[in-house]
Amino acid sequence: MQDFMFCAPTQIFFGKTALDKLAGGVKKYGNRVLMVYGGGSIKRFGLYDKVVKIFQDNDISFMELSGVEPNPKMGLVREGIKLCRDNNLDVVLAVGGGSAIDTAKAVAAGVHYDGDIAELVGQEYFGKILPILTILTMSGSGSEMTTSTVLNNEATGVKAGFHGPDVRPRISYLNPEFTYTAPKRQIAAGVADGMSHVFESYFSNEKGAYLQARFSEAILKTLFQYGETAVKDPENYEARANVMLANTWACNGVVVKGNYVMWATHIMEHPLSAVYPNLTHGEGLACLTPPWMRWTLDEERAYRYVDFGVNVLGIDRNLPDMEIANKAIDITEDYFFNKLGMPRRLRDLGVEESRLPELAQLTMNRLNDKAISIMYKPMHYDDCLEIFKAAF
Amino acid sequence: MQDFMFCAPTQIFFGKTALDKLAGGVKKYGNRVLMVYGGGSIKRFGLYDKVVKIFQDNDISFMELSGVEPNPKMGLVREGIKLCRDNNLDVVLAVGGGSAIDTAKAVAAGVHYDGDIAELVGQEYFGKILPILTILTMSGSGSEMTTSTVLNNEATGVKAGFHGPDVRPRISYLNPEFTYTAPKRQIAAGVADGMSHVFESYFSNEKGAYLQARFSEAILKTLFQYGETAVKDPENYEARANVMLANTWACNGVVVKGNYVMWATHIMEHPLSAVYPNLTHGEGLACLTPPWMRWTLDEERAYRYVDFGVNVLGIDRNLPDMEIANKAIDITEDYFFNKLGMPRRLRDLGVEESRLPELAQLTMNRLNDKAISIMYKPMHYDDCLEIFKAAF
Repeated sequence: MQDFMFCAPTQIFFGKTALDKLAGGVKKYGNRVLMVYGGGSIKRFGLYDKVVKIFQDNDISFMELSGVEPNPKMGLVREGIKLCRDNNLDVVLAVGGGSAIDTAKAVAAGVHYDGDIAELVGQEYFGKILPILTILTMSGSGSEMTTSTVLNNEATGVKAGFHGPDVRPRISYLNPEFTYTAPKRQIAAGVADGMSHVFESYFSNEKGAYLQARFSEAILKTLFQYGETAVKDPENYEARANVMLANTWACNGVVVKGNYVMWATHIMEHPLSAVYPNLTHGEGLACLTPPWMRWTLDEERAYRYVDFGVNVLGIDRNLPDMEIANKAIDITEDYFFNKLGMPRRLRDLGVEESRLPELAQLTMNRLNDKAISIMYKPMHYDDCLEIFKAAF
Repeated sequence: MQDFMFCAPTQIFFGKTALDKLAGGVKKYGNRVLMVYGGGSIKRFGLYDKVVKIFQDNDISFMELSGVEPNPKMGLVREGIKLCRDNNLDVVLAVGGGSAIDTAKAVAAGVHYDGDIAELVGQEYFGKILPILTILTMSGSGSEMTTSTVLNNEATGVKAGFHGPDVRPRISYLNPEFTYTAPKRQIAAGVADGMSHVFESYFSNEKGAYLQARFSEAILKTLFQYGETAVKDPENYEARANVMLANTWACNGVVVKGNYVMWATHIMEHPLSAVYPNLTHGEGLACLTPPWMRWTLDEERAYRYVDFGVNVLGIDRNLPDMEIANKAIDITEDYFFNKLGMPRRLRDLGVEESRLPELAQLTMNRLNDKAISIMYKPMHYDDCLEIFKAAF
């Protein structure tokens, strides 16, 4: 096991009564809130009114930053920063999924930062940050408990972010019912995103992080157990609750700390979302993951696919290792496409074949030699292009 | 899944380099430390000197409260409180296992508390508490990341404690090497304690907390995988690291939050440790757990023993449920006594048969009707006595 520091201080209020604690949570930090959200869905389904009523009943004033889109934009972040500065707001509350939260995080960091928010990209930021609270309506990014934010820079076409201890939300309100009205396609994408967060460190060459591997399997088992039901039966509380919690834990450090690992499929997906800003992150991941798995699989690395196949998917341990491994990858692919109903190929997402070399190059631009050497299987330009082609 | 609040803000520095962060950690909170430890073992094995050198190199002054014994005593806590008050100390650092940490917690809480520390027992305490740091040398209690402390009140003969959000350590330094010199018997007891913490909520009637059940299995698998090696091969880093981390996670809320549960074996063990102050907590638990499991097992409750047998112990799923369940309990008992080398029966720990009714009564004194109704199988006086007798 590698040495590590773990700290995940976000306070999680989970369940049907979660919002009962909203007013008290806000008031720990102030009473002038910037509420960050996307389009009209939180208004259509009543959540906006609930939050506003809580604010009114508790003398909390608020302003709004709406219009957050998938793969959140720097421009909107700058608007939010200005709103906070001009009105001396003291808390940023995201109501939504990963994009709303990541926008809120960048706004909160930018308020006391002297330069432009784009300068923080790629940095670990220790400056003063407004307290961030979140109400989750779409689960998958894990951003409700992470120290990072990922943004699209419209000017440079790069999707990347920054991180820091106080970028982590102070309080997150997780009521599975708030996800009932999310589009099925987003629920499926969230499941794939959560699985991918786990895969990124589960497929590690650090064999001594046994507990972390078993925790990873616990999350994966939960997502395989409930993902399909969560998509097909939106008001199944048990399914939505388990998926929501699994997605939160997938990304808060528990499975990665103690491993020695460099993410791969997320690094390939970020250029996809940057070049195609309307592409759904989890769908990109679902297309890339099985081809990436097949590319990594060899005799030396089969052990972890055997763990995955046997412990998560219930494949018979007595089969030959490579057979278990291949079966496990096939089941994963089948789960994404046939059970969760996701698009199978990058071409189905509107990706153009002619741009695959550019996507591979954009991926490699984010990886130095050290990062490549840490990967489960070190990936170079030709490998990366091969995986993009297999996923196309 | 039940509604819950989860928050585990303790910063964990894990691994061989953990102490590199000690000086910085202390200085976040002050530079006058009360160091709380047990007997001479931390001096004998060099850890004391290491800590003192770090303090000297960083202009941190310290005083000492030594002599902590298993099942820590109120009297020593009062001494520590006086030391902190008289010398205006600002940080309490425990170096040891659960008893040193629980003593440190009670001292830290008592410094600013007007009454006697014994008054806090049974309470949730929100008053001002000195920051608590820990360096773990024995793993099992999980106290390095919990909000509670358990103490022996010599005057009343009751072992009980109190809890509160700030009773949780701010920073815990977990270097598995610091456990190399702990007596094998204590390592075994720690493994049994960690397993028991998981069992207490794994055996729950809340069937919708699927993720929590899988996390529980991850911890149990880890303890079954490495417990024996940790006991028999003290300098096996991988085994000690996995056991240490599993024990920490067993008790920090991850497996219990979302469940609906009232602990049973710990509630029975606390009177044992109160009546027999030299009895080792984990050994008492190991004697009580298999008889408690057999007493709870029936057709209705077999499902969780089947999960346990299949997912943790690898028993063939095709066997009849009750056969899997009984086999799982037998394997657990065998593991404690034949693999970890623990005492099998309460009589081996010096418990007298004539006092079993008293122990059952002391147990029931801590359980009201509500608590009993939440138990995996509601336990009344006669049941409790029956379990004590079976464990005798």
